[in-house]
Amino acid sequence: MPALRVHNLAMSLDGYAAGPDQSVDHPLGVRGDELHECFMLTTRFGGPGASDADERFMAAGEENIGATIMGRNMFGPVRGDWGDSDWRGWWGSDPPYHHPVYVLTHHPHDPIEMEGGTTFNFVTGGIESALELACAAAGGRDVRLGGGAATIRQYVQAGLVDELHVVVVPILLNAGERLLEPIGDQVQAFDVAEVVSSPDSKVTHVQLVRR
Amino acid sequence: MPALRVHNLAMSLDGYAAGPDQSVDHPLGVRGDELHECFMLTTRFGGPGASDADERFMAAGEENIGATIMGRNMFGPVRGDWGDSDWRGWWGSDPPYHHPVYVLTHHPHDPIEMEGGTTFNFVTGGIESALELACAAAGGRDVRLGGGAATIRQYVQAGLVDELHVVVVPILLNAGERLLEPIGDQVQAFDVAEVVSSPDSKVTHVQLVRR
Repeated sequence: MPALRVHNLAMSLDGYAAGPDQSVDHPLGVRGDELHECFMLTTRFGGPGASDADERFMAAGEENIGATIMGRNMFGPVRGDWGDSDWRGWWGSDPPYHHPVYVLTHHPHDPIEMEGGTTFNFVTGGIESALELACAAAGGRDVRLGGGAATIRQYVQAGLVDELHVVVVPILLNAGERLLEPIGDQVQAFDVAEVVSSPDSKVTHVQLVRR
Repeated sequence: MPALRVHNLAMSLDGYAAGPDQSVDHPLGVRGDELHECFMLTTRFGGPGASDADERFMAAGEENIGATIMGRNMFGPVRGDWGDSDWRGWWGSDPPYHHPVYVLTHHPHDPIEMEGGTTFNFVTGGIESALELACAAAGGRDVRLGGGAATIRQYVQAGLVDELHVVVVPILLNAGERLLEPIGDQVQAFDVAEVVSSPDSKVTHVQLVRR
């Protein structure tokens, strides 16, 4: 059975995975971009290079992944019925997935085939249905759960997440979208595999794995 | 002017400084003791010794401190009027302060002189009054703000905290008393001076200092 893995999920010191007032201009909400500054330093994002830990955890998020699941809000800012929207994701014509992506939505949408091997598939059957489809498409590799926070919470609550890598960014946002609340009886479902902070970026990587 | 300093304030990964259902038997709430396990390993608490970072941050909390402020709930479990309560704190006859301690309360109480130089003084005039008294008593040294979370939030919101050392403990509590919410317009009042994680205890020390 493939593992369902969350990687590089940034959270502020006060627990927010996104700032308030998410919009097309601010996909991560106001000041939400500060959560991802550490990622932009990595070679993966064309940066000058980050600490060993930052680079290692960034790279780990792409190792042995055959499919990705994401919530609709991570795919784009369109809400409700798709109408005649021609939105094709935030990532340009050649998204960095290069494998099948499953987007959770209540509104049916035809698959969108992009360059470079990425196909966006739209799943209306719920999180377990999306996981089943993603596992089947992953060809024996693992499935990455991209986000956002609400989607990750749903999978955690359902006991379906095997690995959860949280990046604690030492900023305070004071408002926005909380990552880890509520997760109900899954609160003791994880062991702490590793905790390592990066002197340069000042973030802390916390790797949780299912017991 | 003495600095007002918070040290060794443990917070779960999901942001709680105490678990739910605080009581005499569970001063830190249910599972709240897990937040302080890392401290018990330090030589300061008679433990076998912890990582350099854990020991250093624990020791820093007692350096150049001349007085302590705490909320009433940190002093004890008695609520409302003191009545004929003979509660003298959680710490036995010789509390580990050895200097004047100012307890915030709405209900007047005579000072309690303990062994070893600790005196518990009860302040009904509010947080600024307590700070004024503590600064005067500190003899040129700094004032430590002990806790709990609600008291620290009040001082942070009022812009009075100069140093805030948070220990992120990688457990999930899912309920309890939140440390950092809400702190209003003080949300950008701090710089991050240091972030260091301890491989053994798996906690992360985050040292914030007023800009």
